[in-house]
Amino acid sequence: MRLIHFSHNRKEYWGILEEKNIRIIREEPSRGIKPVSKKIPVDCVKFLPPAKPTKIVLIGLNYKDHARELNMALPKEPLIFLKPSTSLIGHNDAITYPSSVRQLDYEAELAIVIKKEGKNIKPKDVRKYILGFTCLNDVTARDLQRRDGQWTRAKSFDTFCPLGPWLETGVSPKDLRIRSYLNGKLRQDSNTSEFIFPYDYLVSFISKIMTLNPGDVISTGTPSGIGAMERGDTIEIEIEGIAKLVNYIK
Amino acid sequence: MRLIHFSHNRKEYWGILEEKNIRIIREEPSRGIKPVSKKIPVDCVKFLPPAKPTKIVLIGLNYKDHARELNMALPKEPLIFLKPSTSLIGHNDAITYPSSVRQLDYEAELAIVIKKEGKNIKPKDVRKYILGFTCLNDVTARDLQRRDGQWTRAKSFDTFCPLGPWLETGVSPKDLRIRSYLNGKLRQDSNTSEFIFPYDYLVSFISKIMTLNPGDVISTGTPSGIGAMERGDTIEIEIEGIAKLVNYIK
Repeated sequence: MRLIHFSHNRKEYWGILEEKNIRIIREEPSRGIKPVSKKIPVDCVKFLPPAKPTKIVLIGLNYKDHARELNMALPKEPLIFLKPSTSLIGHNDAITYPSSVRQLDYEAELAIVIKKEGKNIKPKDVRKYILGFTCLNDVTARDLQRRDGQWTRAKSFDTFCPLGPWLETGVSPKDLRIRSYLNGKLRQDSNTSEFIFPYDYLVSFISKIMTLNPGDVISTGTPSGIGAMERGDTIEIEIEGIAKLVNYIK
Repeated sequence: MRLIHFSHNRKEYWGILEEKNIRIIREEPSRGIKPVSKKIPVDCVKFLPPAKPTKIVLIGLNYKDHARELNMALPKEPLIFLKPSTSLIGHNDAITYPSSVRQLDYEAELAIVIKKEGKNIKPKDVRKYILGFTCLNDVTARDLQRRDGQWTRAKSFDTFCPLGPWLETGVSPKDLRIRSYLNGKLRQDSNTSEFIFPYDYLVSFISKIMTLNPGDVISTGTPSGIGAMERGDTIEIEIEGIAKLVNYIK
């Protein structure tokens, strides 16, 4: 099932995407999926990020191919960092290139959206805490990341977290092709089977540090092939079985 | 004015602290302060963190005395990092010492709570965006901070952000004595006049990166004298003109 968060005539809704139409659901999907009869054509809506997180937790190095590319040893445990919720934008929205930034990079990632509150979740129970999976672009000001040492500023500007276009609830995240395209040219091409830490391990690991809330986003790292974007570019993140997330640089 | 967030008979309220009583206000203070006639004795309430932030932004080195202690050059620009809102606890709450941590440090800080949405705020306009000031303890797992390089995990555990006991709306933050006491013994003793970056510069700097929302917390760094806490300890953060924040380690 594809869960979509959108606005239409200035009102916000959640819905289920069925071919070219959206069947509206009554409230946020973490509270239960209760469809109403009203349908809206998907061509008439503005996409919103398909999560309202209290936090967005991301992972450093998590693809074996990326570690090989960087000639780095595999990490022994996940390295986490945070983005603020104000960095979120949806499908078809513009990423703003800040005037203070010299190098703006894309990073294609598979993101997990949490369904219910959880703390100290065991890996075998993780799936019950997940509402769905989607595409995330961990936009990074590479020059600021190097200058600061800490990654927060480089990754926290408004518009630096494109998410969407929707949540796929039914997919298994263990063997999905993940690609990014810059202006239509393939730049990243890997598979979630290259994960150093499996998705259930990651969610369990993070839940031992902090309580997870409904809507929280956990992103699973990026594969090899990251690179820079310029104003006017189009960046697309495509994950097999989920969708393609398209954004523009302005 | 002292704005207090508390629970009483399992219900949450905001109020104005007047001597030993709290005058309840109708809604969150960022929406306007409308007192009702009902009063509750402060001895009968449980303190809650006096903010409901969408993000908590903290600053690395920001006291000249701390820079001298570390024998470090003064930074040219602020270094920011984030804590998740799930790390918040209130006055008199317990800080949980995680079993995976070997060194748990206190860091006394002056925190700012934001009143209204703002982006690209000029330093001269910052005061209009501030609801009030309070005490914050930037609890840090020093061993994990060193091991990870990135600071997020070390600072993001549940209970690692004591805040309170209330917001002081009328104080000027430019010349306030700030102290911490571990089991009653003075450990940090400095003054906000030692700030490397003034509070209005910090808020302006952060607002150029990310939109600030009502309730967001900005913390202003810690002075010299940080150190470790053990289970059973009492840690107090006292800021002149504001209050004393007391927490326990369990």
